Amino acid sequence: MAQIIESIPNISEGRRPEVIEACVDQIRTTPGCTLLNYSSDESHNRTVITYIGDAKGVEEASVKLVKKAAELIDLTQHTGEHPRMGAVDVMPFLAIKDCTTEDCVELSKVVGARIAEEAGVPVFLYEYSATRPERQNLVKIRKGQFEGMAEKVQEPDWEPDFGGRKIHPTAGVMAVGARPPLVAYNLNLNTDDVQVAKDIAKIIREKDGGLKCVKAMGFDIEDEVTGKKYAQVSINMTNYEQTPLYRVTELVKAEAKRYGVVVTGTEIIGLCPMKALVDSAEYYLQIKDFDFHTQVLENHIL
Amino acid sequence: MAQIIESIPNISEGRRPEVIEACVDQIRTTPGCTLLNYSSDESHNRTVITYIGDAKGVEEASVKLVKKAAELIDLTQHTGEHPRMGAVDVMPFLAIKDCTTEDCVELSKVVGARIAEEAGVPVFLYEYSATRPERQNLVKIRKGQFEGMAEKVQEPDWEPDFGGRKIHPTAGVMAVGARPPLVAYNLNLNTDDVQVAKDIAKIIREKDGGLKCVKAMGFDIEDEVTGKKYAQVSINMTNYEQTPLYRVTELVKAEAKRYGVVVTGTEIIGLCPMKALVDSAEYYLQIKDFDFHTQVLENHIL
Repeated sequence: MAQIIESIPNISEGRRPEVIEACVDQIRTTPGCTLLNYSSDESHNRTVITYIGDAKGVEEASVKLVKKAAELIDLTQHTGEHPRMGAVDVMPFLAIKDCTTEDCVELSKVVGARIAEEAGVPVFLYEYSATRPERQNLVKIRKGQFEGMAEKVQEPDWEPDFGGRKIHPTAGVMAVGARPPLVAYNLNLNTDDVQVAKDIAKIIREKDGGLKCVKAMGFDIEDEVTGKKYAQVSINMTNYEQTPLYRVTELVKAEAKRYGVVVTGTEIIGLCPMKALVDSAEYYLQIKDFDFHTQVLENHIL
Repeated sequence: MAQIIESIPNISEGRRPEVIEACVDQIRTTPGCTLLNYSSDESHNRTVITYIGDAKGVEEASVKLVKKAAELIDLTQHTGEHPRMGAVDVMPFLAIKDCTTEDCVELSKVVGARIAEEAGVPVFLYEYSATRPERQNLVKIRKGQFEGMAEKVQEPDWEPDFGGRKIHPTAGVMAVGARPPLVAYNLNLNTDDVQVAKDIAKIIREKDGGLKCVKAMGFDIEDEVTGKKYAQVSINMTNYEQTPLYRVTELVKAEAKRYGVVVTGTEIIGLCPMKALVDSAEYYLQIKDFDFHTQVLENHIL
């Protein structure tokens, strides 16, 4: 495979295996596209799917996925911790190899137009594909969630980029766009007081004056196996080179001390570029003058 | 490239550029094999060459390299700090991708037989390829060096695995074998008392009852730029999956406390497989249930 584009859509279903499998099957059965990973969260009621391919393969798989999700997922019946506005909530495209961000912007427009046409789901272009500055940020687009979306798209500034001002009755609306690689990173706390996680999230996130390129929320999580409840700081690292994982981790630990709380463990959801992890190894192992590009063996093979 | 085997032979020439280039050219001109790196040390009078390829490409390049080195390097004229027994001293094969240690053992036997036949250099199989326990360790095979080798191979236990009991008059003998990737890792201390580094090295190394797969020595180092002196624990990690970098690092830090000494920084020398670093990131970031093979993006592209 020469050109590699990655897509990591989030679908609003994390509980019914048969629905999740039917959606994932759309990726599995598309030539030119390879399913890498999928991971469901019951309390978020959400599944992250990761696949790669060339532009044509990713286009086909992405459109098929939205059609299937719109058929099987009914947002009027959906509950879950994570904010959402559509059966497929968000569908980013990332340039991984032998392609540019512009190629991904172009792909997002082709896919967005086809989704509106073929699945009847209106599409907002976001991040690098955004047609106006306030649409770069997914959180701003999603504000009001599925329940408020029928009304929101009537507002002068919020007509979707494709599909017009009428939301899909059960599948809502969605965001499609090119963006840089992102690391989804959760830190679990040894407390069931969600307010601690919310307070820490507020301190560390860029929006409220914290670290650049960090989006964070506090969640109440129930362990699927043990039923034990705990609070979680759930983070999207939108640029792990600007703000590395270790910095976020150490800041969360430091802030947690105020409450006598510690981090019991962390999770990386889905895929993570090796550099995001190697940068943190360098910090903790105190490695001096390490040259990532020449000293990591795999960089010579890729 | 599907299957990837890496070889990192050491040749006994680090001073004459024309000889080094002639040897390295054997790798450059072999199809199915890619030269990654070569690095010469004048005081050791030795050059480390790194290349990768499929079994067939690495086999061809490796045999060609030994033939050329045996033609141009004369051990009867060789001086240098590093112990050596042959024009090519040692030639390890490492399984990097889509191959097993057994494949590398098999390759080492094919290459060893060809070297004896085509270059007239007797070969000891070492590490995973060793045909008896005392031949696993390169240091034991090399004991006596080039100067003592003609006599050593007459001893009952020291007939080479290929090529018989007659060393090459100028190119000596060599070791060929499969081994796991090795990480060269140094930890610098904020003391100029080399005894502290020696004491710590003794505690952590396998030979003296420390951690498995750790070789360690204490050195007196003088910074080339500032002239400042400090003690260093210099480590060869012979299996970074069995004994990860973080464990060595934390143990060195813990033992250093006895002397009121701290680690000021560490160094990774040469190439390092990403897994050696990712494993330590997992530990320090407390990542749970991380699946290296499926969650590190690059593993899907390699």
